[in-house]
Amino acid sequence: MAETKGLKVVVIGGGSSYTPELIEGFIMHHDRFPVTDLWLVDIPEGEHKLRIVGQLAQRMVEKSQLPITVRLTTNRREALVGADFVTTQLRVGLLEARIRDETIPLRYGMIGQETTGPGGMMKALRTIPVLLDIAKDMEELCPDAWMLNFTNPAGMVTEAILNHSNIRAVGICNSPIGVYKWLTSLYEVPMERIYAEFVGLNHLHWVTQVRIDGESKLEELLANRDGYSAKNVPQYEWNASFIRSLGAIPTYYLKYFYLTEEMLADQIESSAREGTRAEVVKRLEDELFELYKDPELAEKPKQLEKRGGAYYSEAAVNLMTSLYNDTRDIQTLNVRNQGILDFLPADACIEVNCVVTKQGPIPLPVSVMPEAAKGLIHAVKTYERLAIAAAVSGDRGLALQALAHHPLVTSVNKAEPMLDEMLEQNKAFLPRFFAAQTV
Amino acid sequence: MAETKGLKVVVIGGGSSYTPELIEGFIMHHDRFPVTDLWLVDIPEGEHKLRIVGQLAQRMVEKSQLPITVRLTTNRREALVGADFVTTQLRVGLLEARIRDETIPLRYGMIGQETTGPGGMMKALRTIPVLLDIAKDMEELCPDAWMLNFTNPAGMVTEAILNHSNIRAVGICNSPIGVYKWLTSLYEVPMERIYAEFVGLNHLHWVTQVRIDGESKLEELLANRDGYSAKNVPQYEWNASFIRSLGAIPTYYLKYFYLTEEMLADQIESSAREGTRAEVVKRLEDELFELYKDPELAEKPKQLEKRGGAYYSEAAVNLMTSLYNDTRDIQTLNVRNQGILDFLPADACIEVNCVVTKQGPIPLPVSVMPEAAKGLIHAVKTYERLAIAAAVSGDRGLALQALAHHPLVTSVNKAEPMLDEMLEQNKAFLPRFFAAQTV
Amino acid sequence: MAETKGLKVVVIGGGSSYTPELIEGFIMHHDRFPVTDLWLVDIPEGEHKLRIVGQLAQRMVEKSQLPITVRLTTNRREALVGADFVTTQLRVGLLEARIRDETIPLRYGMIGQETTGPGGMMKALRTIPVLLDIAKDMEELCPDAWMLNFTNPAGMVTEAILNHSNIRAVGICNSPIGVYKWLTSLYEVPMERIYAEFVGLNHLHWVTQVRIDGESKLEELLANRDGYSAKNVPQYEWNASFIRSLGAIPTYYLKYFYLTEEMLADQIESSAREGTRAEVVKRLEDELFELYKDPELAEKPKQLEKRGGAYYSEAAVNLMTSLYNDTRDIQTLNVRNQGILDFLPADACIEVNCVVTKQGPIPLPVSVMPEAAKGLIHAVKTYERLAIAAAVSGDRGLALQALAHHPLVTSVNKAEPMLDEMLEQNKAFLPRFFAAQTV
Amino acid sequence: MAETKGLKVVVIGGGSSYTPELIEGFIMHHDRFPVTDLWLVDIPEGEHKLRIVGQLAQRMVEKSQLPITVRLTTNRREALVGADFVTTQLRVGLLEARIRDETIPLRYGMIGQETTGPGGMMKALRTIPVLLDIAKDMEELCPDAWMLNFTNPAGMVTEAILNHSNIRAVGICNSPIGVYKWLTSLYEVPMERIYAEFVGLNHLHWVTQVRIDGESKLEELLANRDGYSAKNVPQYEWNASFIRSLGAIPTYYLKYFYLTEEMLADQIESSAREGTRAEVVKRLEDELFELYKDPELAEKPKQLEKRGGAYYSEAAVNLMTSLYNDTRDIQTLNVRNQGILDFLPADACIEVNCVVTKQGPIPLPVSVMPEAAKGLIHAVKTYERLAIAAAVSGDRGLALQALAHHPLVTSVNKAEPMLDEMLEQNKAFLPRFFAAQTV
Repeated sequence: MAETKGLKVVVIGGGSSYTPELIEGFIMHHDRFPVTDLWLVDIPEGEHKLRIVGQLAQRMVEKSQLPITVRLTTNRREALVGADFVTTQLRVGLLEARIRDETIPLRYGMIGQETTGPGGMMKALRTIPVLLDIAKDMEELCPDAWMLNFTNPAGMVTEAILNHSNIRAVGICNSPIGVYKWLTSLYEVPMERIYAEFVGLNHLHWVTQVRIDGESKLEELLANRDGYSAKNVPQYEWNASFIRSLGAIPTYYLKYFYLTEEMLADQIESSAREGTRAEVVKRLEDELFELYKDPELAEKPKQLEKRGGAYYSEAAVNLMTSLYNDTRDIQTLNVRNQGILDFLPADACIEVNCVVTKQGPIPLPVSVMPEAAKGLIHAVKTYERLAIAAAVSGDRGLALQALAHHPLVTSVNKAEPMLDEMLEQNKAFLPRFFAAQTV
Repeated sequence: MAETKGLKVVVIGGGSSYTPELIEGFIMHHDRFPVTDLWLVDIPEGEHKLRIVGQLAQRMVEKSQLPITVRLTTNRREALVGADFVTTQLRVGLLEARIRDETIPLRYGMIGQETTGPGGMMKALRTIPVLLDIAKDMEELCPDAWMLNFTNPAGMVTEAILNHSNIRAVGICNSPIGVYKWLTSLYEVPMERIYAEFVGLNHLHWVTQVRIDGESKLEELLANRDGYSAKNVPQYEWNASFIRSLGAIPTYYLKYFYLTEEMLADQIESSAREGTRAEVVKRLEDELFELYKDPELAEKPKQLEKRGGAYYSEAAVNLMTSLYNDTRDIQTLNVRNQGILDFLPADACIEVNCVVTKQGPIPLPVSVMPEAAKGLIHAVKTYERLAIAAAVSGDRGLALQALAHHPLVTSVNKAEPMLDEMLEQNKAFLPRFFAAQTV
Repeated sequence: MAETKGLKVVVIGGGSSYTPELIEGFIMHHDRFPVTDLWLVDIPEGEHKLRIVGQLAQRMVEKSQLPITVRLTTNRREALVGADFVTTQLRVGLLEARIRDETIPLRYGMIGQETTGPGGMMKALRTIPVLLDIAKDMEELCPDAWMLNFTNPAGMVTEAILNHSNIRAVGICNSPIGVYKWLTSLYEVPMERIYAEFVGLNHLHWVTQVRIDGESKLEELLANRDGYSAKNVPQYEWNASFIRSLGAIPTYYLKYFYLTEEMLADQIESSAREGTRAEVVKRLEDELFELYKDPELAEKPKQLEKRGGAYYSEAAVNLMTSLYNDTRDIQTLNVRNQGILDFLPADACIEVNCVVTKQGPIPLPVSVMPEAAKGLIHAVKTYERLAIAAAVSGDRGLALQALAHHPLVTSVNKAEPMLDEMLEQNKAFLPRFFAAQTV
Repeated sequence: MAETKGLKVVVIGGGSSYTPELIEGFIMHHDRFPVTDLWLVDIPEGEHKLRIVGQLAQRMVEKSQLPITVRLTTNRREALVGADFVTTQLRVGLLEARIRDETIPLRYGMIGQETTGPGGMMKALRTIPVLLDIAKDMEELCPDAWMLNFTNPAGMVTEAILNHSNIRAVGICNSPIGVYKWLTSLYEVPMERIYAEFVGLNHLHWVTQVRIDGESKLEELLANRDGYSAKNVPQYEWNASFIRSLGAIPTYYLKYFYLTEEMLADQIESSAREGTRAEVVKRLEDELFELYKDPELAEKPKQLEKRGGAYYSEAAVNLMTSLYNDTRDIQTLNVRNQGILDFLPADACIEVNCVVTKQGPIPLPVSVMPEAAKGLIHAVKTYERLAIAAAVSGDRGLALQALAHHPLVTSVNKAEPMLDEMLEQNKAFLPRFFAAQTV
């Protein structure tokens, strides 16, 4: 291949506790993805954490003896100049905002979750404008770079970027690779012998095919409904006859929709017992940063696995490697629909299998579309598009419509005061909503 | 026009308390719709009521001095021979079944309603096979006749007939004509000067345009949200800012979706106070039949208007008249989608404006499709199609999927025992579900 | 109805020989379409003809004793102020340009016709920019007016207006009403008892249903293939077994596609014998204008019927009357596809049955789509869209692509010099193509 | 991988002169595609050629020292039992029929070609029933086998198989791999560094993207229009400004459409000079079989390359290898549309890039769809579907409609006698057309 210069990668939200995973990935795959300039960027408020994580990253690279330079900065525009790949893993409003996302809805009798339901909408309203600003910088400073967006709600954020900027962006989540990892351990085969087909949206997918060496394993997986789970979603057993007649494996996030009552009861109970998931994560992160400070530490600590974002790094490095090398392998990503799901708009962002080429991921037609899932996918996508439009415009009416049409919102009459409370509490992060009023 | 013979009309469920409305309609419009043979058909269990209503019908016709023969029978096949129009207004399991539809879901903490939610599904499971039997008879005995299906859930029943028989059928509901009547009284103009555009499904529509002599009245109607209501749906005021940002007038049935919590609380309270709606209706019907018995009575009694099916007769006679005379006027009907709503299957039954020609109603493209409504329409249609498939096949798994994907069902874990209870209690009317087990 | 003021109608190309037909229509239907201000507009070069026709129009109105004022002007903008309806019936480059459209292609061995094939493209390239200028004036001077576009190629011109301006426009052709007239005379019934369904594009439609009082007459019409014809298309008998297996009645313009060789031979022979159709028309028009000059003449002369545009006036007045009165009757018009033909873009202009409401025509879904016709419709529409894009941009490459993809063009190698000759000869009317070069 | 048994491959039309190419491919790729049982099947009339080619195949295998058994048979059903892969490369009516396909249309002034135009239709009418018989045998004898259909017209034959049988089939052509080979030699890079995107139908495709290591080469290829060519299509230079404004590289078969006049003149001239292409091929084949008889020959002779089907073997072995090994690489194949081209039916067969998985090829959404090509693709597909329906039903009316709607047929009046002559001359191979008449 003609390209010989090394690659410049920018990690926005570089002070995240996840960063060591990513560093490990870059080190392990350096032969196929020769990053030479690695920039960790964070906002001034996060500089302290950036310093701690960044120094660990530098120690990890040093130990690897690879020609990678790690740069730490709070000047995003400086970092972006001439970048080849930009990853985004940020949290507008930090964990404090997440605590509010998880608690306010609960007070109105509705699911309080970081990416799903009213909490997810608030996160979207805060986050989309920030990501659009980053995209605008990229249009100017590195127009050919790929953005890999990990920032949640990843599907909505990616759709906003794809439809409101001109950069090249892909949304990515660790949930699909988690399914692969579960299957590799269940069947004791390497990932490349597995064929799994996903359909749906981010945090709202169904697995409709599982094959090992071409042979279907779906029926036996449905019969044995234990399924896979995730750290940040309570472990609930699926109803066996429901799963069998569904004929597909739902992601654990679908428990918020299929088992709303139970999940809500669990949230109320566990937040009383141990605080919200955000508070649990906050304690975990504090512990992690204590570990990261250790000047002897030069590798990813084991404890990071408890954190919930398992395989993020692997998913990210796989995608960058395939984009760079034109590998044309199949990965499950968040991309423009382009007619794959014929009941959704062509520019809606969906989560499906893609072939990753140098020109970007090409979504694959789905071979199985569970009829039962169509309505729910469309209902959530309808909410998502209304919420994206609200985030971009700062229009309260659109935000109210988004809530009113979310399947987990049980009363428009309650949605309105809940919205007002959420907007008020997030005021500092919602200039598009509040700008007009201050005039 | 060449046709000179009079028309044969068959009313299945002729013993219904609504029948006098229909008779009144046939009498008033006899010049344009010259019915000569009118058959009222009911099942043997309904013969007593058929007799009472039928005799009233005969007195009404006699008084009109029109050349109409009214025949009463419990032999459906005899009645159908050579019919031109067949209307269906029946209730499998009578009001007793409706009481169960309205009470069982309430015990599981979900909306209990005759046509919407789990109760509506039970009604569909009981009703669809009976209507398919009628359609089969029609294929044989009057293959060119039109069926006007009033039987609820009218959209689902009509979709089942259109996709599982070869007869010509249209679904019809009094809710759209109710909107027109509300507008005629509000603006004091005749119906023909009003243009209202409907989009959605039966009992799940939005009015997206209202024009008087071409001038839009929508904004002022949205600002004044009082809206219209129906006897069988509790009167709730819509949230004003919700209605304004929605930009369309939702049918009162949409309160079950947009105000689920409030409607559920109201159901619990009112069923404790006065019994379910079914029980209220039962009392009203008993009173009506007492009136009907009066041998002096030869017209529709005023009290019928309390019953809830206002304008049914007018809607039905309008449709028959237009089909017969190739009138090509616009009516809101339940017909095959055929691409009008591009996100739904072509063979889904939808409720939209149609031009009524002699060859049948042709659905009109919608000029406004509220983005916010798409997901909910698709979610409910997904449930409907699963429930229709369950009704046709007697497959419990499909019925469970239908419930699991209904927006008003809040837990699959609760849906399963609720389904079992509902199936068990309706056993006598569900041969397709229970036949296999008896073998 | 509240509206009491009379209507202002502007006829652009008012000096056309067709105008007396239109005047007759306004007079006959004045009770339902109360025009009070009628402006006939033409370009300065056409002032002489405008004077002759206009004075005949004034005599016709005077004789009618109706309160209509006829105004003649060459100041289009003055005429358009506050107009309610604008009709366009103009010919950029006059009959001289049509002669070139009909003769240049013949020299390259291809069909030379005013609206079909390379000649039609040249007409489109000359005409579209002029109509867009009129539309621009209307946006400013009468934004709520309806434009009824008769100007050929009517489908392409209308598509250009609909997609490149904000005015309300409908394309209209006398060919569909001609089918109705043929059927009324064949079956001796009034038009309102006929139901004919059209599908396709302007000058490229198929009639797929013909019903009298609801009864199908299609099979007998196909068996008797004589069909209807038009003054400006040579009379050729259709091949009987072709028409029967086609199962639809093709418009006479389809002979250019289905009988290309014979039509081409006929054009070569008849243009040698009597000149092109344009030259024949020119002689007819000269005769008509001689008649129009007669100060005793105060009605449409019989000879006008030879001209070829039979029923234009009736079609136009019908459409204006229905738009004005919200009649909601069915007319065959050129409107936006909006999904009616699912294989064409939503914004393509098609010719189909529409319900005419006060808000405009609503296209009706087609009940029969002949599979055999799809490819030809799409091929011609592809050409049309390329040609429209060429007309708007002045891009020679697009014009070459349009020709290369026209089904009647048999060689790209010949298309290129033919295009160059046509552009050169129409230079005076193609500022968008030649502007850049003069700089 | 668990599978250890060798593979059984059946070559139907094994007596073809192409077979040595295929044998060479199986030998070269035996490590990745371990065929052990290779059956060459032909009809009794072809037994002599089967013997000659088969013995050469056996000598080639022997020389390779691989564990492959080559079996020769005229008993197709015996060969198919338990097959893993079946390839079809047959010619119903032999080269004599092809001579008729190429000469009859010429006499009516139309293109005479083996796969394109009226000749291609006749080939389809003869061939489709035979392939459906093979598919029926496969349903019974090897239901899990893959059929690789090379038999022309490959797109139409494959569509017929996919829609009228239950086997797994892919259509394959050497034309796309020919483009890759041309690019490898032009840019001196291996195939895997090239990314080319194809869109269209078999023998009617456009190349819309060419990238080497991700960098676009399309513009420079369009500027240098020499293009690639094929042995069986005369070499004509494309018109330079046409190719540039088209923005895609058309297959050489598109010259029949874009340069109809020139191609027709060339056919008339060359068939007078050297006979039809069929006759040229016949002479070539006779020479090849003379060579094949040489008992010393144990490899593919060089002269085979003149024959016209270059890279057939490579394309076939690539596809079988990828299906067998779940390689998930991109190949250009003829498969069900499934919404990829949204203007064609979902079950139409199209030629596009696919990812080849063990479950079969998955077509990739096209990233560029040239607007100019849509109409022609749809026109040819319309013809193809009518012709397939005619082949399956034996309906002369459908065959006439197919011709009438083929872009290369210039007169329905000529199409009818041409059809009659072609049917009559192919009577022996058209039982579905003539069966009814003999009763």
